[in-house]
Amino acid sequence: MSGISLYYWPSLQGRGEFVRLALEDSGTEYVDEARHHGWDAIRPLLDGKHPGTRPFAPPILVIDGQQIAQTAAILHHLAPRLGLIPPDDQARLIALQHQLTVADLVAEVHETHHPVGTGLYYEDQRDEAQRRSASFRRDRMPKFLRYFEDVVQKGGGHAVSGEHTYVDLSLAQVMLGLAYAFPNAFAAFEPQVPGLRALRDRVVARPRISAYLASPRRLPFNEDGIFRHYPELDDDPADG
Amino acid sequence: MSGISLYYWPSLQGRGEFVRLALEDSGTEYVDEARHHGWDAIRPLLDGKHPGTRPFAPPILVIDGQQIAQTAAILHHLAPRLGLIPPDDQARLIALQHQLTVADLVAEVHETHHPVGTGLYYEDQRDEAQRRSASFRRDRMPKFLRYFEDVVQKGGGHAVSGEHTYVDLSLAQVMLGLAYAFPNAFAAFEPQVPGLRALRDRVVARPRISAYLASPRRLPFNEDGIFRHYPELDDDPADG
Repeated sequence: MSGISLYYWPSLQGRGEFVRLALEDSGTEYVDEARHHGWDAIRPLLDGKHPGTRPFAPPILVIDGQQIAQTAAILHHLAPRLGLIPPDDQARLIALQHQLTVADLVAEVHETHHPVGTGLYYEDQRDEAQRRSASFRRDRMPKFLRYFEDVVQKGGGHAVSGEHTYVDLSLAQVMLGLAYAFPNAFAAFEPQVPGLRALRDRVVARPRISAYLASPRRLPFNEDGIFRHYPELDDDPADG
Repeated sequence: MSGISLYYWPSLQGRGEFVRLALEDSGTEYVDEARHHGWDAIRPLLDGKHPGTRPFAPPILVIDGQQIAQTAAILHHLAPRLGLIPPDDQARLIALQHQLTVADLVAEVHETHHPVGTGLYYEDQRDEAQRRSASFRRDRMPKFLRYFEDVVQKGGGHAVSGEHTYVDLSLAQVMLGLAYAFPNAFAAFEPQVPGLRALRDRVVARPRISAYLASPRRLPFNEDGIFRHYPELDDDPADG
């Protein structure tokens, strides 16, 4: 069968959103399995009950009966078929490199609210989260965004090959997520990355993305996802 | 020119070691630039002074005049040429997925000693590091290693396609690194992953790897790298 199924936690954007944006932007039909059947739909895949390479964690894409995990690997495999990367090896490699740097940034965003451990509640690591968030807002967010600003400036407004690719979709999502999680810090910094702002604005104005963002398929940002808004993490702690 | 140059911090194994192991195992000639010329050799690449895609961070490989960053992207590009992955797309995709899960594990190891921020000294985040390490030793390390044990058991002792690939080299490095960083916790857990132990033993006995590990090119593990041994992070804190 040629259907495409996405398996991801049904109540948050998370890393699955980078895959959803590629599917939506390209007008690809897909089934968001756990949104329809609950996250029990994911369990057999994680338990290795499906043929093929067992995934460590969602998102998982099933395409042509093959399951693939790891966001950047999914996009690397899927994007040529969706027309979201030129089919040459060189462009695909550059896109993979950039998507992995996006993944590093996303992982550091997750660490801002869970520095002591993913298995613990946020409330039990709030003090540490404030320290981690302060260094993220001050050092890491500017470093990552200035880097991508340079990439996009040199790429004629795009991350790869002067063309619209899945990396642009991911960068737009990062800009939206940071604005949600750290509204004060992001608003203060945003003027320094005009190329990324323009890229984001162009992406959200694309007809299929615009329709998707207005649809119930787009979950709102919330405090179960990667980009979480805790006001105390957007302000300098008293001892900061 | 057809030479291969690796750019990585000259005084630690870090993420560069996953690339070094692939180069060494395949008997590929390469220049470890910063080991010869100091880390000033890396600066122009990070500053975007070289043609091609600017890297965000080392390791950076320059091959055929092209620069590539991100460990998993480097290995994805390099491995077919080194004979460290079957050349078919399917095997390459599975290897990429596994290498990204190795990268996730490695990132979590780094977080055990720098949970509050990479820009701060370890000594200024020791308490938080103890909490993070406790959850890593108790939950995350076992989860990752049990997952890869299952992968290797199903793969006839290998991660991909029942064949020796760069992913096996990376898994062996992870086993060595965890044993260095968390000797007590790792020794207690290791009997649960016999397939990974056998894989590690087989990798370190490979003639070129064995020679490399005994050479001055192999830097020792140390407290500047990713796998660091701080005794207090290998024992339960008093309040754990």
